[in-house]
Amino acid sequence: MLFLVRMDVKVPTHLSAAEFDAIKAREKTYAEQLQREGAWRHLWRVVGEYANYSVFDVPSNDELHRLLSGLPLFPFMTVHVTPLAKHPSAIQ
Amino acid sequence: MLFLVRMDVKVPTHLSAAEFDAIKAREKTYAEQLQREGAWRHLWRVVGEYANYSVFDVPSNDELHRLLSGLPLFPFMTVHVTPLAKHPSAIQ
Amino acid sequence: MLFLVRMDVKVPTHLSAAEFDAIKAREKTYAEQLQREGAWRHLWRVVGEYANYSVFDVPSNDELHRLLSGLPLFPFMTVHVTPLAKHPSAIQ
Amino acid sequence: MLFLVRMDVKVPTHLSAAEFDAIKAREKTYAEQLQREGAWRHLWRVVGEYANYSVFDVPSNDELHRLLSGLPLFPFMTVHVTPLAKHPSAIQ
Amino acid sequence: MLFLVRMDVKVPTHLSAAEFDAIKAREKTYAEQLQREGAWRHLWRVVGEYANYSVFDVPSNDELHRLLSGLPLFPFMTVHVTPLAKHPSAIQ
Amino acid sequence: MLFLVRMDVKVPTHLSAAEFDAIKAREKTYAEQLQREGAWRHLWRVVGEYANYSVFDVPSNDELHRLLSGLPLFPFMTVHVTPLAKHPSAIQ
Amino acid sequence: MLFLVRMDVKVPTHLSAAEFDAIKAREKTYAEQLQREGAWRHLWRVVGEYANYSVFDVPSNDELHRLLSGLPLFPFMTVHVTPLAKHPSAIQ
Amino acid sequence: MLFLVRMDVKVPTHLSAAEFDAIKAREKTYAEQLQREGAWRHLWRVVGEYANYSVFDVPSNDELHRLLSGLPLFPFMTVHVTPLAKHPSAIQ
Amino acid sequence: MLFLVRMDVKVPTHLSAAEFDAIKAREKTYAEQLQREGAWRHLWRVVGEYANYSVFDVPSNDELHRLLSGLPLFPFMTVHVTPLAKHPSAIQ
Amino acid sequence: MLFLVRMDVKVPTHLSAAEFDAIKAREKTYAEQLQREGAWRHLWRVVGEYANYSVFDVPSNDELHRLLSGLPLFPFMTVHVTPLAKHPSAIQ
Repeated sequence: MLFLVRMDVKVPTHLSAAEFDAIKAREKTYAEQLQREGAWRHLWRVVGEYANYSVFDVPSNDELHRLLSGLPLFPFMTVHVTPLAKHPSAIQ
Repeated sequence: MLFLVRMDVKVPTHLSAAEFDAIKAREKTYAEQLQREGAWRHLWRVVGEYANYSVFDVPSNDELHRLLSGLPLFPFMTVHVTPLAKHPSAIQ
Repeated sequence: MLFLVRMDVKVPTHLSAAEFDAIKAREKTYAEQLQREGAWRHLWRVVGEYANYSVFDVPSNDELHRLLSGLPLFPFMTVHVTPLAKHPSAIQ
Repeated sequence: MLFLVRMDVKVPTHLSAAEFDAIKAREKTYAEQLQREGAWRHLWRVVGEYANYSVFDVPSNDELHRLLSGLPLFPFMTVHVTPLAKHPSAIQ
Repeated sequence: MLFLVRMDVKVPTHLSAAEFDAIKAREKTYAEQLQREGAWRHLWRVVGEYANYSVFDVPSNDELHRLLSGLPLFPFMTVHVTPLAKHPSAIQ
Repeated sequence: MLFLVRMDVKVPTHLSAAEFDAIKAREKTYAEQLQREGAWRHLWRVVGEYANYSVFDVPSNDELHRLLSGLPLFPFMTVHVTPLAKHPSAIQ
Repeated sequence: MLFLVRMDVKVPTHLSAAEFDAIKAREKTYAEQLQREGAWRHLWRVVGEYANYSVFDVPSNDELHRLLSGLPLFPFMTVHVTPLAKHPSAIQ
Repeated sequence: MLFLVRMDVKVPTHLSAAEFDAIKAREKTYAEQLQREGAWRHLWRVVGEYANYSVFDVPSNDELHRLLSGLPLFPFMTVHVTPLAKHPSAIQ
Repeated sequence: MLFLVRMDVKVPTHLSAAEFDAIKAREKTYAEQLQREGAWRHLWRVVGEYANYSVFDVPSNDELHRLLSGLPLFPFMTVHVTPLAKHPSAIQ
Repeated sequence: MLFLVRMDVKVPTHLSAAEFDAIKAREKTYAEQLQREGAWRHLWRVVGEYANYSVFDVPSNDELHRLLSGLPLFPFMTVHVTPLAKHPSAIQ
């Protein structure tokens, strides 16, 4: 089951650069892990913004929320989820 | 080069159902053709809406506009384009 | 799997009152059927508006889109879907 | 009398994690108590967001405001209330 | 129980002026009746707009929806309802 | 001359609770005084929000601005003013 | 008492050009008359739009609504009114 | 003096295709003429939309409005103008 | 050449009251000076808000930006500029 | 390939004026360099705002993101990118 997810990151000013870098490193590991496992199907940067559009493939809404709320950057993100369905003209 | 495209269709009230069905049939053929050629990489229905999110892979902005403005449903659509870039945490 | 759905109806001016009444009667039958089957868990009127908030319980995004796009009033509606997950403080 | 309520939480940066955890613990107790008493009929997480949609069943607007403004997280929330009425097609 | 209601009227172009005048006359009668009965406590014109802000005093959400959806101009209105509660600094 | 005023309060984080309580106490006194004098005709809490809708009755725009900008909570408020006129269907 | 007023005109498609020209001619006469009388203090075109920003000087909200709702183009306009007060740094 | 102008065209449904094509042909002639004269410095298509971003170089606001309101497509356009100034880091 | 300008001031919390008062005093001097010189033609307070609507009369966009960006309160303001043109029904 | 880019700068309050001036100096050098190299084709100030509209000419979305995210002011900017295509009426 697919969902389009947009994530916008707002860099916190109450953390040191080193603290935030550590969070970003954990985020990268987490994102790569979910991509390898197949749940995070696509991950694209929005040009010019500290934001991404992603496509997740998950068995349930609960699982999607578990994955998103587990993001190390989650406390610094605005996240918006759009459920997707099969399109009648899609050939895949 | 990837672009996220959202298309919202507004059914015209000044066309007959048969006229609009004919346009939709041409749209389906056109969409399937572009998908086979690789330019229209993904096509998903937005759940509950007469709308889709798509990803296009094109060599230029001009080519993307040519493809989108050639859609048989283009006169009845609101289209919004977001340019995408490679994300540093993407493993693809 | 639960989804909150808001539906806003815009009465078409190119149909006769009798034609639109017939559509509304089919809508009522359809809505009651889905409620009896358990897919349409809640249906509330938004006070002062020709609109409702509903909760659907469906096994997939595809099934939700099938149910919503099958609504007799679908061509006259603006629909917005929000995926819901279990809340850690919910006791149900 | 039913009301749909959306609550969005913004984590304060001027409190320590321990202070905020204590507030969240009180919030959980409060939410569970109101659910057991029947005033807080439904509580769902919005997927991907620190937010919920809830349905309250209260005898009056004043009582609803008393319950909402008493939430331990109220100072950190944006709350929006939509009054609901019985829908003519609802079978409940 | 008080509610602030904003109503914006959009004059239909598919009715004759005489037809719309007849609807407006019924609206006036209806509004005056509800004011005399006490349910429609205040009715003010928004300066420069075909719109009003009103305050209704009703025993329930269902009753408010019954009154608003019964307005002869209801099909031509956008209506927005805000529930009100007693303010701790109000002296009334 | 009547004006609808909406005031939304944002609690400042750079003041102590005691400092803000003192401002709120002055606000209450100020609001009660203006109500007794007749300039602040109605004061209602917006359910679920730290906000109010009010109706002021003043002889001029200048006087309304003087009253509003004199509110002890004014520096912490977003205020929006809508001028009201007599409605032709109002019976008052 | 001053008010800033923005008026946006939407040309109706159900009137002939001659009918609409006649309305515009009456609008021009009406606008010139109110300017000569002093109530319509300023009238500026918004560059690139069929819209104007105006300043009215009127003794009351009721009078302003009477003047605005009497505009021959009023049925085809979106009007927004902002009440103005004397600014402490204004030297006029 | 430079202005950024965005123009969005909405195709009218009350004109025949031939009538609208004639207007578009006049628009093209008009646009090319203004570009040759130097007033319309840049003209770009917004990808995926029946819209353009343009830069005009004109001696005054009045002249800009004269040029824009003279566009054959002006009655079918939404136009938004942003005044531009020299940027301190621009090397041109 | 006329421009309508709206300025909204946001009081900074990282300055002392004395520091901000000093900036406001410089702002007042600056505003009065530009009014006397004729560039700042009108200055009105928006009722209920820490904001003003102003009309500037300047020979160019560059000059307008120089004047606005020189405002002592500029770092604490949101400014929006609308270019104005002569209206065909204006009698001035 | 052309892109219209709007950048809005928000001055940070957690940096000293000297620190921010150093960043702005690096920004100026960076912007001038990209203009000389031809990637940053146009750079205009938005009148009255700490913002610019720019046109970039780049071979790809990835390159555009590399240039924009490398801006010394990037952490303090809101950036929005609009892809542009050749317009059929453009004579360039």
